[in-house]
This record gives sequence, structure tokens and C-alpha cells, in this order.
Amino acid sequence: MNPTENQYTIGLDYGTNSVRALIVSTRDGSEAGSATWNYAHGENGILLSRDPNLARQHPADYLEGARQTIVAALEQAKAVEGFSPSQVVGIGVDTTGSTPLPVDKEGMPLAFKSEFEGNMNALAWLWKDHTSVREAEEITLRASQERPQFLDKCGGTYSSEWYWSKIWHCLRVDEAVFDAAYGWVECADWIPTMLAGKPDPGTMTVGVCAAGHKAMWNANWGGFPDAEFLSSLDPKLAALRGRLSPNVRSVDEAVGGLSEEWAQKTGLLAGIPVAVGAFDAHLGGIGAGIREGTLVKTLGTSTCDLMVVPQSEQLADIPGLCGIVPGSILPGFYGLEAGQSAVGDIFNWFVSVLNEGSHIELTEAAGKLKAGESGLLALDWNNGNRTILVDQELTGLLLGQTLYTKPGEIYRALIEATAFGALTIINRLEEYGVTVERVVNCGGIAEKNAVLMQIYADIIGRPLYVSRSSQTCALGAAIAAAVASKQFDSFDAAQSAMTGLKDVVYTPDEAEHATYKRLFALYSQVHDAFGTRGESNLFNVMKDLIQIRREVRA
Amino acid sequence: MNPTENQYTIGLDYGTNSVRALIVSTRDGSEAGSATWNYAHGENGILLSRDPNLARQHPADYLEGARQTIVAALEQAKAVEGFSPSQVVGIGVDTTGSTPLPVDKEGMPLAFKSEFEGNMNALAWLWKDHTSVREAEEITLRASQERPQFLDKCGGTYSSEWYWSKIWHCLRVDEAVFDAAYGWVECADWIPTMLAGKPDPGTMTVGVCAAGHKAMWNANWGGFPDAEFLSSLDPKLAALRGRLSPNVRSVDEAVGGLSEEWAQKTGLLAGIPVAVGAFDAHLGGIGAGIREGTLVKTLGTSTCDLMVVPQSEQLADIPGLCGIVPGSILPGFYGLEAGQSAVGDIFNWFVSVLNEGSHIELTEAAGKLKAGESGLLALDWNNGNRTILVDQELTGLLLGQTLYTKPGEIYRALIEATAFGALTIINRLEEYGVTVERVVNCGGIAEKNAVLMQIYADIIGRPLYVSRSSQTCALGAAIAAAVASKQFDSFDAAQSAMTGLKDVVYTPDEAEHATYKRLFALYSQVHDAFGTRGESNLFNVMKDLIQIRREVRA
Repeated sequence: MNPTENQYTIGLDYGTNSVRALIVSTRDGSEAGSATWNYAHGENGILLSRDPNLARQHPADYLEGARQTIVAALEQAKAVEGFSPSQVVGIGVDTTGSTPLPVDKEGMPLAFKSEFEGNMNALAWLWKDHTSVREAEEITLRASQERPQFLDKCGGTYSSEWYWSKIWHCLRVDEAVFDAAYGWVECADWIPTMLAGKPDPGTMTVGVCAAGHKAMWNANWGGFPDAEFLSSLDPKLAALRGRLSPNVRSVDEAVGGLSEEWAQKTGLLAGIPVAVGAFDAHLGGIGAGIREGTLVKTLGTSTCDLMVVPQSEQLADIPGLCGIVPGSILPGFYGLEAGQSAVGDIFNWFVSVLNEGSHIELTEAAGKLKAGESGLLALDWNNGNRTILVDQELTGLLLGQTLYTKPGEIYRALIEATAFGALTIINRLEEYGVTVERVVNCGGIAEKNAVLMQIYADIIGRPLYVSRSSQTCALGAAIAAAVASKQFDSFDAAQSAMTGLKDVVYTPDEAEHATYKRLFALYSQVHDAFGTRGESNLFNVMKDLIQIRREVRA
Repeated sequence: MNPTENQYTIGLDYGTNSVRALIVSTRDGSEAGSATWNYAHGENGILLSRDPNLARQHPADYLEGARQTIVAALEQAKAVEGFSPSQVVGIGVDTTGSTPLPVDKEGMPLAFKSEFEGNMNALAWLWKDHTSVREAEEITLRASQERPQFLDKCGGTYSSEWYWSKIWHCLRVDEAVFDAAYGWVECADWIPTMLAGKPDPGTMTVGVCAAGHKAMWNANWGGFPDAEFLSSLDPKLAALRGRLSPNVRSVDEAVGGLSEEWAQKTGLLAGIPVAVGAFDAHLGGIGAGIREGTLVKTLGTSTCDLMVVPQSEQLADIPGLCGIVPGSILPGFYGLEAGQSAVGDIFNWFVSVLNEGSHIELTEAAGKLKAGESGLLALDWNNGNRTILVDQELTGLLLGQTLYTKPGEIYRALIEATAFGALTIINRLEEYGVTVERVVNCGGIAEKNAVLMQIYADIIGRPLYVSRSSQTCALGAAIAAAVASKQFDSFDAAQSAMTGLKDVVYTPDEAEHATYKRLFALYSQVHDAFGTRGESNLFNVMKDLIQIRREVRA
């Protein structure tokens, strides 16, 4: 199959503060129109309380955002010669996650009901809501004792950010909301089914991405965690399991066609396929051209590293990898997700400590140095280590400073630390047979910071490419729509047509790489000394400091 | 003996940039007059060249400084009821060191001769001149092979700042200066003998402090290093040894009486005793009231820690202690010198990295925290470690930082690191049988920074006292003058009369000390991991980084 001339799809990209609609040509991936809308509720779209761990969103913003951005993007696209809304043949959706919301039997959010007005627990529980730390610890403990296989697929620790932690916490703190909810659905699933008019939580088509990465869903053990396990947490969780839809699919399928109501709201044709939803990073991988052998790195405040491996191949559990889920990125492939808990956030922290520093000045100063010239070495653990140590109780480290160490030198050491962390992930993948043939980067840092990208290339020792599109997530969602609407018979074909690379390639400098090999050996030595239970016996240090701090602050 | 009423002595304190004269009552240590004079030559008294390691002083400044400050201090003292210059009964001198200068057979500096005008090598080689690194390494190497006992008394490494390194370097780079010099004398020795009109280098009375701590002089091996050893460096050094004065004394003795010339220059009585000179820190110890069981800590950009142990006791070599020299502080006692290479300098560095930070604001922020609250741990090695590791190739370390770590928290962690370093020195002394019964602090930080002093007390776990005088070095020199002029029959009696403590005492908070015990265990763990060749195998890390930096910069 080949795409018909002049056909388009829409990608809807739901971020933490706003939503974007992107209208993309299925022929060459060119962008015909784009619009964003800031969520109306809360502060920058997030409803907060006195509890600093709490972060919620209002699902009304998801619907209003779809309408506003689709209409505005279509209006913009009309300036493109020959474009008309009837040429839009599908819609795809990506969102943050895990962001579950409680809904009634018809899929209507409890937040829309007058009896729950003003109740924060009836809203969508945003990915970064950390109210459920205790539940996450209990789930991890019980699973490690009784269902270790559940943890093997999510890096050994079930997170407070994830589905079951949040729902269980709601059950404990607000049983009325829990009892009123027929189901809890990820917003990645709720939005597409709303557009298709089929939000019934018991039968709706849900994405394997959210289910597999956040809700411990796996075909090998019959879907969601078994009722016995959930009962051991709380019998009501087992009962909830019985009401969840068994209809779990990849993003190549549609949840249904656009409803008449939404066709009227937007000006699109009714019936065009709405693809199964997925998380932003995963559809971002598709938008960046992920395929076997290609590592897609999204470089932002934190990083997300994605790879795919054909399900036809044997793939061992890879220690320290956050998630390995069949079909979660591309159908027919294991989706592998890794990442660093802080990258840009570390640079932001350093600038904030400096008071008057600026990223531009510091980057310029850092760029004048050679590998090894600062004499500094840092660890990139200011926000713990997601991959490969999966340990939140690790912290930052800087060593080598003298009385003459300058801010630009520290800034460069922090960049280098994050690059060493990135290389550590690549090495772990390759140790377990996942060959990295090509590295494609996306995200704000990859697009804007050439000094950082060159340091990364010199440390990683491979050419680094940059995704052509700045909107890889929305583009990925549009590609899912193109596949779900049968414009292509494979993601491979759709990505070949619709994605690309920028001209710039960061190629390793041989001398710098040679120096960095020596520095990486030192990084690994310190990494293992503080991060693993090895001979070096420093594993306790960061943990003891956290424990002392906890006691002192209590 | 008791001091006659209304008698005074003068302490002359030669610093890096200026000299101070202090007129002190021998009855109670009260200060009758004081004056300072900034050296006239070079930048802030230091002659510099393109070589950043070079730092010299002009000996003319030492003489002019004595005249200027004595005259001005006497003028000030005349305001004290009943004071007259004839009541001044002695003069003592302390200086920086090792600061040797080349002199002719009559003790006249080569710098005063027209043929060496403008020649930097004919000047005094200031303590912080680091041109002689290679010579220091060669001396250390050869001594470790052939005369290990030489190194046992100076912490295992002969420094580039010390007497023989500098003289040998001069021989190598400017043989004409070396050959023209009959002797090389420490300014601590040259100044008193000039005042007494007896500067002949072959017969002058020199101090055991400079000779013992910097020139490897020890009565046990017959004085200065033997001719065979010096010949193995260069035969001309052995020849020089033969021309040096064998007349090595403690500060309780006089080098002679004030000369007629200097009596006329200053208005003092001719013939009043001029005490044997010593280094500022050592006479500072006396001015702070050092005696058996009392540790005197001078807290400044770096620290100097002094103790004395009666020579009648058995004293083992203490690993990692810079110097143990009989009589170098008090006659009849071993003088023990330890120290931290950077304390205030680390805080200064951090403020300079911060751009806009201020010590006052950061101290205030640090003071609001409790022990352990920051979650941070630092090592105090930004300028290497003098005691107990004696290793210049160690560097700073900070760990525990998160994305929320604030500048005041880091500042406190750096203060804590220096206090942990201080405690490490105390522990080492006590492990080798030197009991610390009392800790007296002096220097700018001890006088001004109550937050730091309380943290030190909480970490060290002992009450901390502060010396009454702000001018402990000059006061110590004045006390030496009082003893040398027989106003007292012992330093103990002189110190009882002339020194004292401030009213403030920093007493450890029990809860804070308990937390700090846990943190000190972590400090020690990281200290040993990076600083010693232990099981932890991180000893190479800081050294490798320095080596890589050296190669990259070459």
C-alpha cells in the first residue's frame, strides 16, 4: 500500500501543562498545521494542594484541549495549498502517564459529577503525583516475595507514580471515590475512546503501552496481576480487576472511528480511525524513527531511552531496565524503556545554586575546555538513578575540585556525568545482546545545545543524529493514526515516509574519545563503589545520609 | 622571678604582606601600642615574575618595617600613663617560613649589592614560592632511599616550600647567586641578628624552629643533613653546610642585645635582649597559651595545629604529622605541628564559584540547619591534605546533592568537612598518646564566625576556647622577649601572666554531637576510600584525574 496523495493525519500530544495538535502529511511528514492550548484548570494545568506530593488534572481540559487545538490547527492548515479537513484520515493520541482517572460504567469521569465537585481524588492523578509512596513500597515488597516476575519487567521496583499505587492510595484515603468508580483508566486510553464515543471502561480498547509499563499487564501471566495477588493488597482491588477491559492492543489498531459528536465539534469527517493511545515518550520514539538497532534518546529535564527488539528473538530480562513490554512501542517488537532521572534538571539545579549563572554563559565556558582538562568527575544522581541501578536513594557527587575550579568546569563535569550515565545504559543494553547501531536524539537539549551533543558524541564514541521533527511525540501519534487508518501496511513504511533526520551529525573526536575512555573507567569505578554492593563498601554512604536527614527532619 | 612593674616587651610579627610591632605589658599582657607597615617592594610586598610559582621579598622591607613599626608603636604607647621607651626590656621576632635569603660572610643580603640589583634570585625566597618542586621531589626520593629518618620527622615528604629545595633550585638556575652567597639564612634568623648587629652566617644564633622544621636539622643526627647526603644532591650543598652556624637555639635565648645603631633608629635602649626568632605559627601558639595538653588551632585560610610534649616523655613518630622537633615551640618540649591545607580558602573558593554569594549570607543560612539536615557530605581536600595523609594529589569531594540542594547547605557541608578534618587530626594525635585536654582557637575565623565555631564544637565534641589576644603571633614574640630578657624564669610563668582566653566558650550540643558521630563515621569511610591504599580501591581516582589533566594541559 502507498499513501494516497495529499492525505493527512492528526497527532494529539498531551503534555503536563498543555496539549498540541499537529497535522502531518502522510506523504512526507511535512507539517500542515499546529496549535497548542494551555490547560485551564489549576496552576499551569496542575491542581495542587498543601501536600507537595499531590498533582492532579481535570479531565475536562483533555476534551476542551482536543477541540481547541484541532480546530485551530485545521484553520492554520487551510493556508496550505489544496488542504481541506476532509483529507484528514486519522487521529492518534499520546499523553503523559501513568495518569489514571476514575470513571463510571459509561466512562464518564467522576470529576464531571456534581457530587464529586471540588474533590481532588476524583480528578486524573497526574504522572508526577507522589502521594502513593507507601503503597508503591508495599506493592514492591509483596511482589518481590510472591510474584517476582512482575518486578522483573519493571526494573525491580514498582513506582509511586504508577497505576496500582495511585488507585490503592485512593482506596485508602477516599473510599467513597474508589467505590463510586466502575473503572480507573489511563488518560492515554480515555481520550481516544472519548473521541470515538466508546469510553465504556469494561470493554474499551486500551493500549498495551500504559497497561504493560505501568499496570503490570503481561500476556504471559494472563493480563493484569492476578486476583489473588491484588486481594492480598485489598480485595477491592481484585474486584476492580474484574471490571477492567481485557481488550489490550498496540498503536497500529484503532479504538474506533471518530464520533459524530466530535466530527461536529472539530470539522473532521466522522468515522476516521482513532488510533490506540500511548505514552508521549513511546510515540515520540516512533516520531524519531525508532526501529531495530536504533536507540532513540529524548534529552530534556530527564531522559527517556527507547529501543525495540523483534518479539521473534529471545530477549533476556535486562537488569536495571525500567520496562520491557511486548508491543508497547511498535507491534511485534518488545519495547525497551530506559532513562536517566535527571539530565537538564541537574544543569538547572546548578544554575539555581549559582544564583547569577546562565546556561548560555556556562555552556560557552564549558565548550572551551578539553576532555579531562577540568580534573573533575561527577555522578549524575541528583535525582537518583533510574537505569541501570533503579535506586532513588542515590545522590549527586562531584570530586576533583581545587581552590581554582571554575563554574564552567563544574558545568562541563555535570554534562559529562550525564553522558557517562547515557553510555552506561548503552553498555548494559549491548551486554544483554541488544545492539545499538544508531543513536537518534530528540528533545530541546538535542536541538539546542551543540556543545553538549559534541561532548556526548565524544564520550559515547558514536555519531549522534538528531530527529528532524521538533514534535516527535505528536508526529508519532500522527504516524500511529496513519497506520491505524491503513495508509501504510507497517510502521516501517510509515516512518520511512514521515520521519527524518536533521543534517547535523555529531561525530566523535578521536583524541577526546580516547581521553574520555580513561575518564569513563573512573566514572564506572565511582559508580560501582557508591551504587552497587561491591567490594568497595561505599554502598551505604548515600543511603545513610538520606536516613540521617530523614530522622533529623522528623 | 616576677616581672618588675611597668615593664614591656615588643613582638615583631612579619607576615606575608606587612609587619606588625606590638608593645605588651609583661605584667598582664595588655597592649600598650601597636603599628603595622606594608612592605614597599613588589605587589603587596611580594615580587612576582611571569612564572606563577615565583614569590620573593626584598630584605630591605624587613629592616625598614622594623624601624617604622617600632617607632610608630612607641609613639602610640606614650599615651599610656607612665609609659616610656626605656621600659621596653626586650624584643622578639616571628616571621613566615621557610623564607631563606642569600647573604655574604658578614650577613649582608646579596640583594643589597649593586651587582645583584634586579636579580630575583638574590632576594628572600618567600614561603609560598613553588619554583622548587622538582628539587623537593628529588630530595624526598633520595631521602626515602638513603635517610628515611629525615622524612619521618617531616611527615614523609620534603616540600618545595622548604630551605634545601629552594637553595638547590637557585644553584641550578642561577649559580652566580649561589656562589656569591656565603650562607643562606631564614629571615626568622636574619632579622633578630641584624637587630643585634651580629648577622655573620657562620656564627649567628639561629632558631631550632626553622632549622628543625624546614632544614632537616636534628640533634640526633648531628644537626643539618650530613655532607655525604648533601653531596649526593650536589657537592656545593655539602660545602654550604660547612659554612652554616652550628649555634642552634630555642626562643628562650637571646641572639644578642639591641645594637647601638638600632637603638638610635628606634629610641629603644641599646643592649636589651633580642630573642631567637621563630615562625609565626609557633610563636602564635605561645601567644595563645600553648602548654602540655593544650591544642592551639589557628583558623585562617588554612589551619595550623600545634601541641607540645615534654622531651622527658617517649614520643613515637606520628604518621602523617608535618613536623616533630624538640624545642621548636617551647624549650624542653617536642613541638608538634599539624594542619589543614585549606579551610577558609575552601569557603572563599565556594563564594567565588557562586559569583554573587557572600560569606555572611551563607553563614546565616548554614546556621539555620541542624546536623545531618542537608544530607550532604564533603571532603576538605581542595588544596590537598597536609595532615594526616600528607598528599598534595588529593582533591575536593561533595556528595549527597539533590535537585533541591541550596547554597547554604553546601556551605555548611564545607564547614563540616573542615571540622571533620580537624577531628581526624585530634584523633591521630590521641591514637599516638598525645592527649588533647583543651582546645584553644585563634585566627580571624575563630574570632568572627560563631556559627562555624559551634559546628566545630558539635563535631569535635569538646568545649572550644578562643585566645584573648587577636595578635597571638606578635604576643608570642613579645613573650619570647620577656623570657629571653629574664623577666620570667619559664614560658609557663610568662604565659600565665601575659596570655588569656575570651569569655566565650563553644560547648557541644549533645544531640548535634550524636548526629555528627554518625556523619563522621561516613566522612572517615570516604576519607579512607579515596585517601588511603585500602580495600576500597578508590585511591587511584583523584590521582588519575590529576594525571589526565596534566597530560591534557601539556
